[in-house]
Amino acid sequence: MSVNRTATPLIEAPRGLAGVVVTETEIGDVRGQQGFYHYRQYSAVELARTRGFEDVWHLLVHGTLPDARRRAAFAAETAALRRLPAEARAALPAIAAASRVSGPLSGLRTALSLLGASQGMRPVYDIDAGRRRADTLAACAAVPTLLTALYRLGQGLDPVEPREDLAHAANYLYMLTGEEPEPRHARVVEQYLISTIDHGFNPSTFTARVIASTGADVVACLTGAVGALSGPLHGGAPSRALDTLDAIGTPDRIDSWIRARVLGGDRIMGFGHAVYRTEDPRSRMLREIAESFGGPRVAFAVEVERKVEAILAELKPGRELHTNVEFYAGVVMELCGLPREMFTPTFAAARVVGWSANILEQAADSKIIRPVARYVGPEPPVAVPAQP
Amino acid sequence: MSVNRTATPLIEAPRGLAGVVVTETEIGDVRGQQGFYHYRQYSAVELARTRGFEDVWHLLVHGTLPDARRRAAFAAETAALRRLPAEARAALPAIAAASRVSGPLSGLRTALSLLGASQGMRPVYDIDAGRRRADTLAACAAVPTLLTALYRLGQGLDPVEPREDLAHAANYLYMLTGEEPEPRHARVVEQYLISTIDHGFNPSTFTARVIASTGADVVACLTGAVGALSGPLHGGAPSRALDTLDAIGTPDRIDSWIRARVLGGDRIMGFGHAVYRTEDPRSRMLREIAESFGGPRVAFAVEVERKVEAILAELKPGRELHTNVEFYAGVVMELCGLPREMFTPTFAAARVVGWSANILEQAADSKIIRPVARYVGPEPPVAVPAQP
Repeated sequence: MSVNRTATPLIEAPRGLAGVVVTETEIGDVRGQQGFYHYRQYSAVELARTRGFEDVWHLLVHGTLPDARRRAAFAAETAALRRLPAEARAALPAIAAASRVSGPLSGLRTALSLLGASQGMRPVYDIDAGRRRADTLAACAAVPTLLTALYRLGQGLDPVEPREDLAHAANYLYMLTGEEPEPRHARVVEQYLISTIDHGFNPSTFTARVIASTGADVVACLTGAVGALSGPLHGGAPSRALDTLDAIGTPDRIDSWIRARVLGGDRIMGFGHAVYRTEDPRSRMLREIAESFGGPRVAFAVEVERKVEAILAELKPGRELHTNVEFYAGVVMELCGLPREMFTPTFAAARVVGWSANILEQAADSKIIRPVARYVGPEPPVAVPAQP
Repeated sequence: MSVNRTATPLIEAPRGLAGVVVTETEIGDVRGQQGFYHYRQYSAVELARTRGFEDVWHLLVHGTLPDARRRAAFAAETAALRRLPAEARAALPAIAAASRVSGPLSGLRTALSLLGASQGMRPVYDIDAGRRRADTLAACAAVPTLLTALYRLGQGLDPVEPREDLAHAANYLYMLTGEEPEPRHARVVEQYLISTIDHGFNPSTFTARVIASTGADVVACLTGAVGALSGPLHGGAPSRALDTLDAIGTPDRIDSWIRARVLGGDRIMGFGHAVYRTEDPRSRMLREIAESFGGPRVAFAVEVERKVEAILAELKPGRELHTNVEFYAGVVMELCGLPREMFTPTFAAARVVGWSANILEQAADSKIIRPVARYVGPEPPVAVPAQP
């Protein structure tokens, strides 16, 4: 509503609400000048280096790292939620068929929406904090099952049932391939997932909070967030950086390929970030992981990074353009055997935990997020012309 | 992102962004002090009184009322889009089964998501304005088909195929019941639908625009909007006002029932609005329609309205509490034979056109809506404790 809502004066804001504080949060933040981001009071990268996914998931939604007893209970609680209700399972072949062209994020959007419905999720304002949290756990625990089932159905394969004896990340890889993953691959994917759970107040997180502020159920919020994540301005498409590596092809072509793109005004996928003015801390961690694998693909990626940074520093001095999370995330997921079309869904499988923490925080606020628009069209009322 | 994003100072805003101008719009507005709302330059109520749904739909998404030739073309174009793609149709029984408990809005959320996927809808920033509009028409034209099919499947009935020779509203009632509706009923539902297409910058509209601002596809935006509409703070649940009539039961109980509720601090469903300080103009139009039907139910509703307003004026002087759109919307939809569980879905079937107009306007802007959060938790970094 705008012009004459009340006597309250309207408040002008920068385009896109840039810099406008919409809420306080205790979940985390990004310090772009320092190349640092955190979940609660802990460095996110340090959490990824030292903890398991379930620990950090617990930190996000409960607010604390679990002790040994709580970790075991939380792991058991979430592992039991991996198996899909029969109604959700029955719908997956139709969802996979319908999403063949539009891709796995639209399949996830549909499947999550259906999952929440089949579980009878209720508006967050009609249930207590414990029930809300349980709804987020049910959704987050099921996302890997949904994603891998949709992927396999799309490949003409049967879905693989989850195993409760595997950790969250290992079970994700297991459901994808049907084979128990190498521990090293499971741990690397786990670290990637941890590092991707949250990253400041990004657009899909804001979407989840806007929907939560109406009191809608958890899955209504998550469905909207998946939709926002699918927008090209949101980012989070690690496969694009691999496409860059593939397009360059061989080390001798790096220099001419990059110069032509930069001089042509094209963006180099995998480089540059809206917030970081230093190296992206996620990129640094993932490069170290990639280098621990070694091999020609990693060496080529490192060489591309080195040359791109040198060329960008030469052609765009003062811009501080470095690799972003997409660049080495793509390299690392490829090393772990994830198919390229599952890169963004894997990102979503982690971020759903961050969205959940934000939904829980927003639901405790109970103030609807409702800005206004200024009407700038022709002044009404103009008489409606007679039907011709 | 918040604290150290750039050197730009953060901008404080009222809670929930109340009064903050997030965008300009040429779609419409509400003048709460005057009891007036409009689509483009025309009174929405006058449009509902004098035009058909397709005319107003054209006005919203094309910006102008159609001439005779364009009306015919637009009606034919949208009628042809009512029939569902085979993949969407095949998934509906599973979606209906999964939504049995959670209700028709969650069924619509899932079905719309799947429909857009099956049509391969692409990010709004990757397609031209004509293709975007076509995507909104496909979604809006299919919503009545989806809603009625889900409803009938839930009742154990086969869906009814759409008929292209009926107008949008008449076809909606036809698909619901399988019988061609009385022209009077079709016209009244059409007027209700027109009056509900848009209403200022409501929370589901804002949600649609936030998602559109990431460049996501049309159905990603609409799915999020349906989610926001399902939130209890959004409103738009005309069945609640009928529940009030049922709870009162008989005219002699009005006075004691209402006084007990008001003195107990309860809200009377169907009364009061966040914006209007006068009578809600939608309520006035719908009451006139109801009175043209006559009968004991309408007389009872009018009596309840009269007594509630008198009691509220006595017990809450100066508050200006009148019936809102829910009150007579419920009465009118009941008179037209719509089942109570289809009231809010019918609201959604109209509002999807308003969301669409807003998505199209937002997509032409290409500036992401991304406010910030202020981190207020414990200061990081605290060293991550060793795993216990």
